[in-house]
Amino acid sequence: MIRQNIKVAVDAVVFGYKDKSLNVLLIKRNIDPFKDSWALPGGLVVENESLEHAVERELKEETNVTVDYMEQLYSFGTPDRDPRNRVISITYFALVKPEHHKIKADTDAKDVAWFDLQKLPELAFDHKMILQKAKERLQNKLTYEPIGFDLLEDKFLFSDLERLYMIILEKQIDRRNFRKKILSFDILEELDEKVSEGRGRPANLFRFNKKQYFTLKREGFLFDIK
Amino acid sequence: MIRQNIKVAVDAVVFGYKDKSLNVLLIKRNIDPFKDSWALPGGLVVENESLEHAVERELKEETNVTVDYMEQLYSFGTPDRDPRNRVISITYFALVKPEHHKIKADTDAKDVAWFDLQKLPELAFDHKMILQKAKERLQNKLTYEPIGFDLLEDKFLFSDLERLYMIILEKQIDRRNFRKKILSFDILEELDEKVSEGRGRPANLFRFNKKQYFTLKREGFLFDIK
Repeated sequence: MIRQNIKVAVDAVVFGYKDKSLNVLLIKRNIDPFKDSWALPGGLVVENESLEHAVERELKEETNVTVDYMEQLYSFGTPDRDPRNRVISITYFALVKPEHHKIKADTDAKDVAWFDLQKLPELAFDHKMILQKAKERLQNKLTYEPIGFDLLEDKFLFSDLERLYMIILEKQIDRRNFRKKILSFDILEELDEKVSEGRGRPANLFRFNKKQYFTLKREGFLFDIK
Repeated sequence: MIRQNIKVAVDAVVFGYKDKSLNVLLIKRNIDPFKDSWALPGGLVVENESLEHAVERELKEETNVTVDYMEQLYSFGTPDRDPRNRVISITYFALVKPEHHKIKADTDAKDVAWFDLQKLPELAFDHKMILQKAKERLQNKLTYEPIGFDLLEDKFLFSDLERLYMIILEKQIDRRNFRKKILSFDILEELDEKVSEGRGRPANLFRFNKKQYFTLKREGFLFDIK
């Protein structure tokens, strides 16, 4: 086979809904290049492990977060994306509930934190572009399958779901229209429990109807919030 | 950086509609391993080229087919997928009109041909799995965007579009319901030209309304043929 000096890495985009915002899990790099910069967790694939194992291992090592499943996002391979050597990154993404994970930096990471997508620091390498791709994937998903089950608490306010959609779509949505459409899919169960938030009237909690949610996730629907 | 002996390849899944069937472009390998087996066109990435350039170059070299754009499909990286060395394949796919391309084998290919997806030979490596992934992508696309513009002749019979959908969905569809739904999207223009096929009455030719087609491709729709 021809000589080829390209390395293969994996990077993880882990989104979580936290403090009423969509967050992404970042590490502060402990090593050059981009030492002390924030970056997506990730690293080189070890020779005999699968790509899925590699990304789950790197995520666990650098952030202490374990996930059951990561979806492959995209492979980034511009020749100069790493100053050391040509490195191709095969990226994966997952949606988690931040409060279920205790984050802790280790190995190549000197720090780990959740960052609001709207208040991101400068990122190492082409990680800003990777994050952009992950946001687009999430935006796409939202138009043809329900979203929120992996991100929201088991019981949530309708306003949380609404906010999640607005953040992902990056625009204001017509609240009345949104409520009508979402309810028409029968994926939500309104509970007989209320919570108070700020100065508003107590609002009902909702939870997903798992059966209907996963049926629609499998079959697809069209959610066209303009 | 850690020592790592993984090579990076690209492979191309090129679909075309030909002889009333969905076809895929395959090459017969000229080299070991899997010499004389049919396989997807592809090969190792040269150090300083982009992944997109690599896949378009390999496709052109081995089959003489040039495409304007290939969409990244998925990256396959099971450690033992190549008996020589660990090779990760970043795969791409394209839809073409076979009659617009003159195929010709060269370099690592001793032959090249279009194969009906329903009459495939044994394939080298994990290429059957790659093809399966490409079919799934096509099936998914078809549920949320129009398809056919890149595959069918400029003027086509309604039955060709219907057949294309049935082949991709791998099932019979209710023809009346299909016709009603497709026409409701306003992506088709019925022409004042008829052709005869077999023993049936002459049937009208159609073409896509490009403006409406590409608007819907961008915005998405839900096409739920059960």
